[in-house]
Amino acid sequence: MDVLIKGGTLVTMDREQGILKNFSVAVEDGRIVEVAERIPGEADFVIDARGKVVIPGLVNTHTHAAMTLFRGAADDLPLHRWLQEEIWPVEAKLKPQHVYAGTLLACLEMLTSGITCFNDMYFYLEEAARAAEEAGMRAVLSYPLLDVAGEEQGRELLKVAENGLRRFRDSELVRVFVGPHAPYTCSEELLLSAVELAEKYETRIHIHVSETREEVERFLREKGMRPVEYLESIGFLSDRVLIAHGVHLSREEQKLVSSRGAKISHNPVSNMKLGAGVAPVTEYIRAGITVALGTDGAASNNVLDMFQEMKTCALLQKVTSGDASALPAVEALKLATLNGAMALGMHNAGVIRSGAVADITVVNMRRPHLTPLSNPVSHLVYAAKGSDVSDVLVNGRVVVQNGRCRTLDAEEVERFALKQARELFESAGRGDRLFTEEVS
Amino acid sequence: MDVLIKGGTLVTMDREQGILKNFSVAVEDGRIVEVAERIPGEADFVIDARGKVVIPGLVNTHTHAAMTLFRGAADDLPLHRWLQEEIWPVEAKLKPQHVYAGTLLACLEMLTSGITCFNDMYFYLEEAARAAEEAGMRAVLSYPLLDVAGEEQGRELLKVAENGLRRFRDSELVRVFVGPHAPYTCSEELLLSAVELAEKYETRIHIHVSETREEVERFLREKGMRPVEYLESIGFLSDRVLIAHGVHLSREEQKLVSSRGAKISHNPVSNMKLGAGVAPVTEYIRAGITVALGTDGAASNNVLDMFQEMKTCALLQKVTSGDASALPAVEALKLATLNGAMALGMHNAGVIRSGAVADITVVNMRRPHLTPLSNPVSHLVYAAKGSDVSDVLVNGRVVVQNGRCRTLDAEEVERFALKQARELFESAGRGDRLFTEEVS
Repeated sequence: MDVLIKGGTLVTMDREQGILKNFSVAVEDGRIVEVAERIPGEADFVIDARGKVVIPGLVNTHTHAAMTLFRGAADDLPLHRWLQEEIWPVEAKLKPQHVYAGTLLACLEMLTSGITCFNDMYFYLEEAARAAEEAGMRAVLSYPLLDVAGEEQGRELLKVAENGLRRFRDSELVRVFVGPHAPYTCSEELLLSAVELAEKYETRIHIHVSETREEVERFLREKGMRPVEYLESIGFLSDRVLIAHGVHLSREEQKLVSSRGAKISHNPVSNMKLGAGVAPVTEYIRAGITVALGTDGAASNNVLDMFQEMKTCALLQKVTSGDASALPAVEALKLATLNGAMALGMHNAGVIRSGAVADITVVNMRRPHLTPLSNPVSHLVYAAKGSDVSDVLVNGRVVVQNGRCRTLDAEEVERFALKQARELFESAGRGDRLFTEEVS
Repeated sequence: MDVLIKGGTLVTMDREQGILKNFSVAVEDGRIVEVAERIPGEADFVIDARGKVVIPGLVNTHTHAAMTLFRGAADDLPLHRWLQEEIWPVEAKLKPQHVYAGTLLACLEMLTSGITCFNDMYFYLEEAARAAEEAGMRAVLSYPLLDVAGEEQGRELLKVAENGLRRFRDSELVRVFVGPHAPYTCSEELLLSAVELAEKYETRIHIHVSETREEVERFLREKGMRPVEYLESIGFLSDRVLIAHGVHLSREEQKLVSSRGAKISHNPVSNMKLGAGVAPVTEYIRAGITVALGTDGAASNNVLDMFQEMKTCALLQKVTSGDASALPAVEALKLATLNGAMALGMHNAGVIRSGAVADITVVNMRRPHLTPLSNPVSHLVYAAKGSDVSDVLVNGRVVVQNGRCRTLDAEEVERFALKQARELFESAGRGDRLFTEEVS
């Protein structure tokens, strides 16, 4: 076999298996081939999982990976000032190498904190793909479509998107979704063209919906409908659709999302940081919607750490409901693993089970803040940090070993990202936004 | 000099100095003796702070340190069931060695994540003191006073508390406060005896107030006043008082706390996890109250990580106000450092300045999730984790070096804590609450 994970506590996220103590996992050709107490035979690679917990790889279902270059450059600003005065003027100067550098840095951060797959929406998609492939990380990419500047903009971007769809058809790690940016930046025509394109390439759709109250109010004012109602009215909603944010959905909209089989990527940290609001995900789950978790970009988080998202998600539901039993730990872990895989249409993934995709994260529990090991699920959600991850497999390949990334040179990636960030901010006349201490 | 911290970025929390790039700090006899670009002379201990950020030690102003033994043993339960069915029956079996083991584990966790001082309320105070002294950590301890079982209980506990006050009068690292548990567990007489005791020993008072809505409703029902109004009416409030939680204070109560000079320890993670509510700390600060931060015990958090408290504090104020500019990063950092020292009555502390107490935390910024180093304050609050701490000084002594605790043997402390946790839960007939994987 290729890899043997030996003698750990498996939190399988599989109803039949539950939690398996002192169990092993065998991996071959990108798949889990056996889950058992003892697995005989030689492995090319052995991970000693004693004192560790083995979980399905964490799935980050909404991010803008290359925005790691913007980390810390603009905080504590109202959303419109943040976007219009800080983010957009710098993004206007983006070049391919910035996206490559920022995505490499994001992959390094995500892999070493246990994320095996991310769902991205950003420019220069082929550069993000190159970074993910070099990192050995699973990526779902979509090029943002919008036509606020007119029909021609929409047509041009559709071509760019279709090129991406064609180019990565046969990639092992990269899949391409269609990414209409949001109902307020896309015309009805563009939204429907996006649906057509997704149908043609048998892929899915990634779109921002109902992130802020202002967005909902604008739709009510201009269309007499809320955003999800509008999407339903034009025939956009289906099981191909993954809604990012979805903070402000009425009960009626929840029913629409649920009955159409659309999914929601909940981004609690970003929603808090930008003051967007609290998505009532307990209601969404009760309505039968598949809810997954995402970090959003580093400009509004400012990290890509799914452990933080799990804890924040659970805590937000508890404090807003006044009920400490709301969204228990095991549910948060499910959103970050199994539901993440479902939201991205990955089959037989997000679970530790024979036959499943071998995207696996191993967490070291021999830490002061994880002692005593009373309850592995509680510790994963309420106590662990990204820095507790010891080993990570993507598609059966060991990409992180003992906390170190094997596919990327961390120092080199950090140095390159810093250089590109400086170049980008200076080209936008914003060199002062970066604290220019040399990493020497 | 004893210690030289060389060539780092100093986030001094001192208005006149601000942020100093490529500066050094000299430490002698427990004090900072110089802050300058170049400091000549030999040091017994040199910390290379290139690529690192130097801040005043983080101050955890409310915890129950020994409750690390309860970590993960009971989550996702309504507050009353959590306390009555899970916590209290086990606490009834507490022995001195449990408090010693749990506090050692807490000190290990806190020191290695950059906390230099904690304010504790728990049983077997002398065992907690022993653990803190062994760890080389600054501790403020108070024995919980209550008299729900009658006057005699109150009288006995006052004696225990007074013994503690006498015993640690001359300790270098340990101070003792008077700790009436809460206005709903102490009679008026006991509350006033606590004030007398604090005056006699010229010390301060640590008390839980207005943690839940139920507490406020009970006071309104039984006394016709809210908890803080009641404390004011009996002459309890003064600048000696540190209120833990203080989640539900009316504007009128905020004015009382402010005018009396009492302080508030805000515990956002615990308040979320137990569904207690969101303290409007932006209002409190505007009212002129000194607000500091605390983790509460590990049973309701489940970690003792002040980086997580800083981020959660800022994010909660933003999302509840809908204003992304609420409680900016620098304010959160101030609550965790300077205000923490003020809340505990530490003079010339919580700041990097010549003459100040040498409680110092050094954070390594050469990490993927802290790249690029755009803004050190933003990174400290929104991106750093406890695991990014490299070096810690308490009272001028290097207690953590390159992430490793020099005063405690981490493996031994973890093993001892696990053993004591198991013994404690088994003695309470709750062995099943602990996941008994051997740490071998």
